[in-house]
Amino acid sequence: MDFSRLLADRTKGMEASAIREILKVASSPDVISLAGGLPAAETFPVDELPDLLRAALDRYGSAALQYDASEGFGPLREALVPHLAARGVTATADDILITSGSQGALDGLGKVLLSRGDIVAVEAPTYLGALQAFNPYQPAYVEIETDDDGLVPVSLDRILEDQRVKFVYAVPTFQNPTGRTLSMGRRRQVAEILQRHDALLVEDDPYSDLRYVGEPVAPVKSLAPDHVVYLSTLSKTFAPGLRVGLCVAPVELQRWLVIARQGVDLHTTTLSQALAAEYIRGGLLDARLPATIALYRARRQALIDALEAYMPEGFRWTQPEGGMFIWVTGPRDLDTERLYAAAIARGVAFVPGRFFFADPSQGRSTLRMNFTAAEPDVIREAIRLLADAIHETSRDSTQGVVADER
Amino acid sequence: MDFSRLLADRTKGMEASAIREILKVASSPDVISLAGGLPAAETFPVDELPDLLRAALDRYGSAALQYDASEGFGPLREALVPHLAARGVTATADDILITSGSQGALDGLGKVLLSRGDIVAVEAPTYLGALQAFNPYQPAYVEIETDDDGLVPVSLDRILEDQRVKFVYAVPTFQNPTGRTLSMGRRRQVAEILQRHDALLVEDDPYSDLRYVGEPVAPVKSLAPDHVVYLSTLSKTFAPGLRVGLCVAPVELQRWLVIARQGVDLHTTTLSQALAAEYIRGGLLDARLPATIALYRARRQALIDALEAYMPEGFRWTQPEGGMFIWVTGPRDLDTERLYAAAIARGVAFVPGRFFFADPSQGRSTLRMNFTAAEPDVIREAIRLLADAIHETSRDSTQGVVADER
Repeated sequence: MDFSRLLADRTKGMEASAIREILKVASSPDVISLAGGLPAAETFPVDELPDLLRAALDRYGSAALQYDASEGFGPLREALVPHLAARGVTATADDILITSGSQGALDGLGKVLLSRGDIVAVEAPTYLGALQAFNPYQPAYVEIETDDDGLVPVSLDRILEDQRVKFVYAVPTFQNPTGRTLSMGRRRQVAEILQRHDALLVEDDPYSDLRYVGEPVAPVKSLAPDHVVYLSTLSKTFAPGLRVGLCVAPVELQRWLVIARQGVDLHTTTLSQALAAEYIRGGLLDARLPATIALYRARRQALIDALEAYMPEGFRWTQPEGGMFIWVTGPRDLDTERLYAAAIARGVAFVPGRFFFADPSQGRSTLRMNFTAAEPDVIREAIRLLADAIHETSRDSTQGVVADER
Repeated sequence: MDFSRLLADRTKGMEASAIREILKVASSPDVISLAGGLPAAETFPVDELPDLLRAALDRYGSAALQYDASEGFGPLREALVPHLAARGVTATADDILITSGSQGALDGLGKVLLSRGDIVAVEAPTYLGALQAFNPYQPAYVEIETDDDGLVPVSLDRILEDQRVKFVYAVPTFQNPTGRTLSMGRRRQVAEILQRHDALLVEDDPYSDLRYVGEPVAPVKSLAPDHVVYLSTLSKTFAPGLRVGLCVAPVELQRWLVIARQGVDLHTTTLSQALAAEYIRGGLLDARLPATIALYRARRQALIDALEAYMPEGFRWTQPEGGMFIWVTGPRDLDTERLYAAAIARGVAFVPGRFFFADPSQGRSTLRMNFTAAEPDVIREAIRLLADAIHETSRDSTQGVVADER
């Protein structure tokens, strides 16, 4: 059969082969990958899991294996109430919708809110997975300017003034890919802007528990609760393979999200939710978090130190207070996709920055590095290899110019 | 905020409140529910789960908790190869895509294949969850006639002749909601029709392992492999709360399904897949299936016996050789939604049949009953109560006519 004639008109917009090919190379065992966004396997409660399972089966019995409500497993929704309150998100158990990772909430929001051509305002750069979730619903994107303090409020204000935006999507804390955090002053401005324009923000907050330096900042949700859908996940603080995310949305929107999720997967894995309920209730999440933070703090420092030691002039990078990523910006003429090939040849991988822009003509001289998945020595070696690749590429590039001039 | 102004144009088509309200009442503890489609909790390997977990952690370590490939967990895909071969489905591990329940595959197929207004040919009646998965992609439906041997091939042939159908969706074995099985002769006809029209069938096969009488029939996939996407699930033979489904699609289509699933949930729960791999590899699935079949065989018989004992004249029902449901058709003037209210008042629930039709003006006098979730005595009591409700409703209905004539 010729399947190309059967594809929906939305499907071509889902093409993502370039980044897929890039990450395929990065997963080779000969390559040190700073490309992915994997939590360190050492942080997973592998040893505690058998006891957690016994606790879940003792408490919930076969209900932990049965079909369950699309809204989520009751005891997990209950357990999340104080967990979210500690972050400044006030929600009842009924307000909390459990999704299959926060990716599930992103897809649900796209499905429920986006007609073809609707405008989504995103940070430049933004989380690639959000673009992948929204793209099948064929929106148009408008990019919000960002700087070291996160998105620029005046840019957001102007966009909401000039255009009919369906929703704003942002990762205000330890952003993926930049690691930047929206300052508290700006959060207040953003809340005021949202309220004044009666606009909706999707606040994606997967990383805020992973703070290594500085003081916590309140989520935008706490400042403009009626204008914010708040997303988070247990992927970074329990384990990503359980696929448990959550979404706190105004009730009129939650109702539609539930119906959408029902069509997509009926509900999130019950066993994962039962284990997560016990993990939070039993205090394991809070007890284990400091060790995870200590591990990642050292890796973050190793990456910053290595960048300072090895990177040539003309490169600068963010200094994230938490999360999983550092964003590197090279000289204006650097092409990080070209650099990628040279880096892979030397055994190190990153993600070229352009994939994180809704407009992929941007970000040519930028790249994202993960620091949670590799040990400090390995990180240092990776940056040494990368610096070699940069030197090699810039030599080739000079030769290229000469060749062109002949 | 007024969220109604933010909804996508597709979202109103996702309205499903009637059936949701109905099932909400059915879940009351005072009601015997034959409405749901729950496997019996006694069939879940609750006692075996701790050992399964240890086996999975021993073998896969922290990989069982980490992010994984969107295509599925390698060892599960490997384990499914002989499992599917035993059913007549020839597939390599690479051919098998793991999804979050077969619902995940239905959503993926809708997303990848359906533009607004595209035609999907479905059985009349068909699986409600498939309609819920496809509806957000705004297709039009055309209904294939069915009888006691399943879908009528000449009806399918005429539809494919007359209309440009994107794909055909069918549950050929122990269909939900009717319990009917497409006969072997008809399967050959359907395979020939698909090939002649170069048309695609989505063959949903969640129940074929649950056969209580008669001989297995080969899936349509085995007769026309290039023209069939085959879906199945471990929800009925392991546990539904693990949300593990599978999809065997031609390679050009699988590629797009993987990209679509990546946007929806990144991948299916790794821990569920690791447990499922051990469950199949270790022989537990095959070892436990006979007990499940024996349990359900007795419940099916109890339902058939009770229907014969209590149902008034003018009612007939299917005699499924397997699966989870029996389909009851009442006299032409019966309104099973009205009957539902009377049945709930007496403490028994079913699903009114019209919800299983793409055209909901049909099926007014039909209803679906599940027989896997309740014990034989309870099933018998449920049918006795239902018969009372029928008698009451038909009395009221006569009085209603008299009242109208006044």
